[in-house]
Amino acid sequence: MWNQIRLKTRHVAILSRRINSRSVLTAPFASRSHENHNSFYFITVATAASTGIFLTSQTAKCDKGETEKLKNVTVSQVAKEDLDELDSSIDFDHLPIYSSGDVARNNGEDGRPIWMSYGGIVYDVTEFVANHPGGSEKIMTAAGSAVEPFWYLYRQHYASDLPMRLMEHLVVGKLDEKDQELIDEQVAELEKEDPYAREPRRHADLRIHSDTPMNAETPAKWLNEHYLTPNALFYIRHHHPVPILTEAQLHDFRLQLDMKECKGDENAPPLSLSLDELKSMPSTTVTVTLQCSGNRRSGFNEHQRTSGTAWGQGAISTATFKGVRLADLLERAGLGDPIEAEKNGMKHVVFESLDGMMASIGIEKACNPFGDVIVAYEMNGEPLPRDHGFPLRVIVPGYAAVRNVKWVNRISVSREEAQGPWQRGLNYKTLPPSVTDASKVNLDQMPSMTEVSLFSGITSIGPLRIPKDVKEGDTVRCSVKGWSWAGGGRNIVRVDVTGDGGETWSTAELLEGSQQPFGRAWAWTFWKCKDVPAIVVKDKESGKLKAQIASKAVDLAFNVQPESCKHTWNVRGLGNNSWYRIDIPIDSRKKRYSN
Amino acid sequence: MWNQIRLKTRHVAILSRRINSRSVLTAPFASRSHENHNSFYFITVATAASTGIFLTSQTAKCDKGETEKLKNVTVSQVAKEDLDELDSSIDFDHLPIYSSGDVARNNGEDGRPIWMSYGGIVYDVTEFVANHPGGSEKIMTAAGSAVEPFWYLYRQHYASDLPMRLMEHLVVGKLDEKDQELIDEQVAELEKEDPYAREPRRHADLRIHSDTPMNAETPAKWLNEHYLTPNALFYIRHHHPVPILTEAQLHDFRLQLDMKECKGDENAPPLSLSLDELKSMPSTTVTVTLQCSGNRRSGFNEHQRTSGTAWGQGAISTATFKGVRLADLLERAGLGDPIEAEKNGMKHVVFESLDGMMASIGIEKACNPFGDVIVAYEMNGEPLPRDHGFPLRVIVPGYAAVRNVKWVNRISVSREEAQGPWQRGLNYKTLPPSVTDASKVNLDQMPSMTEVSLFSGITSIGPLRIPKDVKEGDTVRCSVKGWSWAGGGRNIVRVDVTGDGGETWSTAELLEGSQQPFGRAWAWTFWKCKDVPAIVVKDKESGKLKAQIASKAVDLAFNVQPESCKHTWNVRGLGNNSWYRIDIPIDSRKKRYSN
Repeated sequence: MWNQIRLKTRHVAILSRRINSRSVLTAPFASRSHENHNSFYFITVATAASTGIFLTSQTAKCDKGETEKLKNVTVSQVAKEDLDELDSSIDFDHLPIYSSGDVARNNGEDGRPIWMSYGGIVYDVTEFVANHPGGSEKIMTAAGSAVEPFWYLYRQHYASDLPMRLMEHLVVGKLDEKDQELIDEQVAELEKEDPYAREPRRHADLRIHSDTPMNAETPAKWLNEHYLTPNALFYIRHHHPVPILTEAQLHDFRLQLDMKECKGDENAPPLSLSLDELKSMPSTTVTVTLQCSGNRRSGFNEHQRTSGTAWGQGAISTATFKGVRLADLLERAGLGDPIEAEKNGMKHVVFESLDGMMASIGIEKACNPFGDVIVAYEMNGEPLPRDHGFPLRVIVPGYAAVRNVKWVNRISVSREEAQGPWQRGLNYKTLPPSVTDASKVNLDQMPSMTEVSLFSGITSIGPLRIPKDVKEGDTVRCSVKGWSWAGGGRNIVRVDVTGDGGETWSTAELLEGSQQPFGRAWAWTFWKCKDVPAIVVKDKESGKLKAQIASKAVDLAFNVQPESCKHTWNVRGLGNNSWYRIDIPIDSRKKRYSN
Repeated sequence: MWNQIRLKTRHVAILSRRINSRSVLTAPFASRSHENHNSFYFITVATAASTGIFLTSQTAKCDKGETEKLKNVTVSQVAKEDLDELDSSIDFDHLPIYSSGDVARNNGEDGRPIWMSYGGIVYDVTEFVANHPGGSEKIMTAAGSAVEPFWYLYRQHYASDLPMRLMEHLVVGKLDEKDQELIDEQVAELEKEDPYAREPRRHADLRIHSDTPMNAETPAKWLNEHYLTPNALFYIRHHHPVPILTEAQLHDFRLQLDMKECKGDENAPPLSLSLDELKSMPSTTVTVTLQCSGNRRSGFNEHQRTSGTAWGQGAISTATFKGVRLADLLERAGLGDPIEAEKNGMKHVVFESLDGMMASIGIEKACNPFGDVIVAYEMNGEPLPRDHGFPLRVIVPGYAAVRNVKWVNRISVSREEAQGPWQRGLNYKTLPPSVTDASKVNLDQMPSMTEVSLFSGITSIGPLRIPKDVKEGDTVRCSVKGWSWAGGGRNIVRVDVTGDGGETWSTAELLEGSQQPFGRAWAWTFWKCKDVPAIVVKDKESGKLKAQIASKAVDLAFNVQPESCKHTWNVRGLGNNSWYRIDIPIDSRKKRYSN
């Protein structure tokens, strides 16, 4: 069910915010389409059938300046109120007017503030730069200019309400209308060649959070269905359009292994390998679970709002990858003894991608013979799909998926970790629970996401044995199924399940994945738990009978999942691994519940 | 302050139980001395000054059969009641009488029950064997016989009340008095050469939980005093008397590296290295925190009773060890490519000790070049002290201390993990919170303790800025100091401190240890946190004003310490890493508080 209304750009995110704030659980999302190139856009508001619809199905358009017409649009009272509020909260008529030249001067140099324009409005973002989720380097590329061309590529700015929610408070003026027209023309020029025009086709069952770039999770019903997630259902988390190589480019493609720093020779040529050369080397396969660092972020939002995609439990999938050991490649490129290299300061192995993304891992992981890091060219027996890194992806088992760089074309050994927001920015830094303003902390002192903690999820409950005259306080019994995974190769040694808030725990039976080698359990472990007693309670809001089931896993180091997400909450919403809780309606007619 | 009363052996543990159950926090302990060899013993009841005294200071003795005299002993009402209860709970006069031959027949063979005798009483331990904390193999060595000679060596049976507490319920009869006299004579014979006669001298500040074998923790005041714990203050956890080598034995000492299984040749001679040969090999140093798996067990006991030494936070210490890389030794012994060895099933490296103890680790840890496992001969620049493994100790950084085998003299590569209770028994298996009876679980399916989770502790609080008219609900401010450590080399990336039960968190400053190599943070990290706001509350029992400070650490995988020990409780009391909580009395005159 899709509905469209045409809005001013600056209305888009505000509308989106209202939707989110009134209905965190329904996880609606907005995506901009690019039918025209003036400062009006279509906003497409969609809610997947499974999460419930709450905007009406009518479609309306309104033209520049004609906000009055929006009041007649039947997109529900929510949207109307938002637009009313927007037009009343800022006195646009009396804002000072600046030129693009004024904006350009305020680029943060020589102590001047940092201005940017968007949709005809000028913002002072000086204080915000440190808090930019994508990193301060990234936002500074737009210092003193219009952000439209940047956001045209980084469309994640339209996927959440966060940008506009923050920018509301930073308005300093209006942009000269003629200058804005020039910007619109520039965007129109860009739109002639949509960078997202050649995206791969995706499976209809993926639960899409944003489509440009694509961010989509594997629905719960599929998580436990196959131990190896089918490639088409593997969750997708992109930062950019998916790179595409022509046949000629593929022919010329080389993986570069750059040892300049390691050899202390600026002119040392890299080891350069074609795909065929790589595939002729001894290969290894490894079965690995990959998880987005923001998986289960939506749970944090119930406690306190975070920024970023509101993932459910499905930003996790598993595949068998085939490729060449990174340690073998580094040895062939001339690394020598990795212990000596490390002693000489060569602590990092940096990966660069065709899409400009960069990330790194430590040499102690790259060169651990039992670390199983590979440069992969196959996924579940097929060539890597474009969505998952074709032609090459680094697989770093047990690490956050962001270190498993897709479309990798350059690998170097370095004294320094990778540059850029994916390694050093706020996006992958877990701040303390008390910090809501990243400008108050030294991000360089905060480690990036590497190994991750341990997680579990519940994917189905049933059969439910519920007596006809069930009432509050009764105990019902059910079977529960789910998955569990820990980073760092730490095997799952136990999963506990409760139906009474932790008063008693049932021990789950561990299924596929429970026999992985010790300390090298790179992939998840499935489990089921029979005959879990669950106490029937009344839901405080609806008054209906329900029971709550929760799971927590234990890894080989006896790490546990925390009871509440309150004490691990962080502003970027990373690593929510609190007990996985699920409410099940208690209705004697219903025998099975799928998450 | 030491007090002695002379009791029947079977009274000892019961007395001890009463002491513990009435005063968990004061952690008194009992230790048997060996002045005579009949079935009466001295029980020495001691409470360190810091934990408060609660038995009076009088000393009394009573002879065989003269339990009546005990009623006059002023060891406090507690002891009197216990002895009264003991004599009334079992009708000793009318128990059947069995001979040593009867006991010997019931050795568990051919479906017969398993009997043992102790102190003139016969017990049926059939149901208990699976729950024996030291493992079922160990207890079965005494099947059908008297346990006195065994307990004479394994004196940990006297250190806690657990054995007698459990055995109370297993009484089936009395042993023929003449047979018991023979046993007493046998013990007398053993006592002529006390295996504990040549124990090393220990530092007076160690907080002793039992002395034969020695189990003693580092007092909190010393934990944060030196980053490297002085050898004399390093905590001690022994299972047996400390091995002692004569000069001749030391001269003949050889470390054996046995590759028979690996080479598939029963006759392959081991690599045999004298201490001098070992020391002539390239050496490496590594700074490692070692922690007993039961550290902070006493916290679990507050929730529900566990078995084993009731450690506070001090069963943890840190030292710099010097030795030879285990991987180098294995290579020299002929292991070859460890990846190939692992593929061929050689998954374990087994360590054997001069005291008969055995434990093993996986080959993926032993042969990870960045795993830093060594065979050490030096500790903090001195030869290994006898208490810490002289002449050789395996150091397995990031693993539970039990895998860091002391007095090691044999290392082998094997398909199987080590035999024996320290690897396979209940002692080092973390059972689910719902399990109180180990016979209900398959211990083989439960992994042994290897890598451990993350911990923190608070060692001092001050200065306390408390207004003179302080009252309930006020906020006082204080500075807090402590330590933190995670297994598996996972760096501590943050420590959070709260004075209001987790409503707000202050971020601690990380001190020594915070700059360890990534993923190889084998040693603890010290921290301090200034200006922590703490809410003044009234203690429910005493009515006095207090505040509660709690700490929780975060490791590089963003594992956290659980809020409560309720959901990690396990019958053996392993791995209590819940928030470290400490109550501080709020008294405007007191400016500093040491734990």
